[in-house]
Amino acid sequence: DSNLKVFSLNSNAPLAEEIAKSVGVGLGKCSVTRFSDGEIQINIEESIRGCDVYVIQSTSAPVNEHIMEVLIMIDALRRASAKTINIVMPYYGYARQDRKARAREPITAKLVANLLETAGADRVITLDLHAPQIQGFFDILIDHLMGVPILADYFKSKNLEDIIIVSPDHGGVTRARKMADRLKAPIAIIDKRRPRPNVAEVMNIIGNIEGKTAILIDDIIDTAGTITLAANALIENGAREVYACCTHPVLSGPAIERIDNSKIKELVVTNTILLSEEKKIGKIKELSVASLIGEAIIRVHEEQSVSTLFD
Amino acid sequence: DSNLKVFSLNSNAPLAEEIAKSVGVGLGKCSVTRFSDGEIQINIEESIRGCDVYVIQSTSAPVNEHIMEVLIMIDALRRASAKTINIVMPYYGYARQDRKARAREPITAKLVANLLETAGADRVITLDLHAPQIQGFFDILIDHLMGVPILADYFKSKNLEDIIIVSPDHGGVTRARKMADRLKAPIAIIDKRRPRPNVAEVMNIIGNIEGKTAILIDDIIDTAGTITLAANALIENGAREVYACCTHPVLSGPAIERIDNSKIKELVVTNTILLSEEKKIGKIKELSVASLIGEAIIRVHEEQSVSTLFD
Ligand SMILES: Nc1ncnc2c1ncn2[C@@H]1O[C@H](COP(=O)(O)O)[C@@H](O)[C@H]1O
Ligand SMILES: Nc1ncnc2c1ncn2[C@@H]1O[C@H](COP(=O)(O)O)[C@@H](O)[C@H]1O
Repeated sequence: DSNLKVFSLNSNAPLAEEIAKSVGVGLGKCSVTRFSDGEIQINIEESIRGCDVYVIQSTSAPVNEHIMEVLIMIDALRRASAKTINIVMPYYGYARQDRKARAREPITAKLVANLLETAGADRVITLDLHAPQIQGFFDILIDHLMGVPILADYFKSKNLEDIIIVSPDHGGVTRARKMADRLKAPIAIIDKRRPRPNVAEVMNIIGNIEGKTAILIDDIIDTAGTITLAANALIENGAREVYACCTHPVLSGPAIERIDNSKIKELVVTNTILLSEEKKIGKIKELSVASLIGEAIIRVHEEQSVSTLFD
Repeated sequence: DSNLKVFSLNSNAPLAEEIAKSVGVGLGKCSVTRFSDGEIQINIEESIRGCDVYVIQSTSAPVNEHIMEVLIMIDALRRASAKTINIVMPYYGYARQDRKARAREPITAKLVANLLETAGADRVITLDLHAPQIQGFFDILIDHLMGVPILADYFKSKNLEDIIIVSPDHGGVTRARKMADRLKAPIAIIDKRRPRPNVAEVMNIIGNIEGKTAILIDDIIDTAGTITLAANALIENGAREVYACCTHPVLSGPAIERIDNSKIKELVVTNTILLSEEKKIGKIKELSVASLIGEAIIRVHEEQSVSTLFD
């Protein structure tokens, strides 16, 4: 279908390549570089007039560069008469800034939604938003895909015995529940409490993990403090072994060192965020979301083609 | 006036400090830092409810970081009930991306204007936009200040004899004309032409520069290619000496080396863009726009206070 174009920006070219392949098209020709002073220069090198355009860009680090790239790309596509501009953002940055936790804080997750709409995006396709409420930040259409089936299938294929799915905090219980249903396993929850002010946190485990293979699941693993403390607490409390998994491997600062030094046997992640080669070695196993996203693009594009029939 | 607050972001703290002093207030308390993964974290550390807030931020390099800082700051200020949010952007980045020079290019200068409005800015105060048409990209109020009087006053104070103001291209003639009027000097124009395709450009000088002290003026000096070639052409064609000046010293890539190796005697710039200490030595003379901007803030604030009387 020559009306469907997939473009990659600079955050995750290997994933974009895979997605295009899964959709059955080549990547659109464009160059996204920098002028001498660091300003972004975008040249779209083929006509996209009247096309449904899909732009693949995770707003992972350097997040501000990647946000500006996608906004400028949208501007260029709009002025070049794209029919629809669909932003595929496997990882949606700033998702943790989704409410005013304190006075006079920004809500950057909402700001970014507004910026995408202002630039001219028609639709956003994303995976595992930090909070599902972020969907409501958009007035344009948003498709919210889930990493859980991909992670669950991987663990199914390992044929582990006597497993239990563990949420590292109360906020993640729904996700752990979904994983547990797919693996027909029970769940446990880590209940961090500070008994008195100025006393170290206690990791209280709700659920019976004794002798079990625990699988910790989270949406984002960033500095890996929470997940590695949780893993060690599980082992100390009698778990036989601990796996961890997440959709978005942010892995900033001390993350890799902490994971290497922890009781985690394997960390299973997806490729929503491009990992450097150094990060890929060691305990990390990477799964691809390309066909999940590719199928979503095909479904959305069919919808868009049908709507053209009624235009 | 406790209703007037001036905040600095990270692009040019020394200028912000000077502007606040010239307005007669202290800088507002806020911290603008980064989370471990590079996301911007802003905390406004004093109440600004009902205040007229002025945020000082040039969108100089790293331009995308500085744009996101100002957008997120605007979001935080709006949610903290600022009465008006006024963005003082001494240097407006992406100003050269102000039209589609080729097919399928973005117009990023317009995009940035839209982003500032979407975030919630009420007003923009800026200096020497690359093209005055950019004022029309805004639906909100924009105050457009000029660096020429500051540059002209400096050259007046040097008591140079037999001067001529030179525009390095046809686009800068209006600016050169303004400078010449203030210095009661004639003007000349450098007319770059390529006699035939694939032949080097010829620097043709329109106007009589023989034996004169030439002052080249531009709005932005970026890689300094144009200005240093122009300076050398002036000397080769009989000028006695050459000064150069501009409002915005972007000075990226080979700029400093080119200037050092050129026939330019002194390069006079303003502090709209913060220069590193290495750049400040050598031929560069820096003038301050702080009181120009301070006066504009006082004038705008009086206007805003008056409008309150009629609310
Ligand atoms: N990039 C980030 N890195 C670390 N913490 C963040 C980041 N963005 C937001 N936060 C903080 O994380 C908290 C929200 O995380 P959560 O409670 O897991 O939803 C808020 O207190 C935010 O200030
Ligand atoms: N940051 C930049 N550095 C160098 N050139 C740029 C930059 N931004 C835009 N341009 C180009 O500069 C030209 C406009 O400059 P001008 O002709 O002086 O208005 C256009 O061809 C732009 O593509």
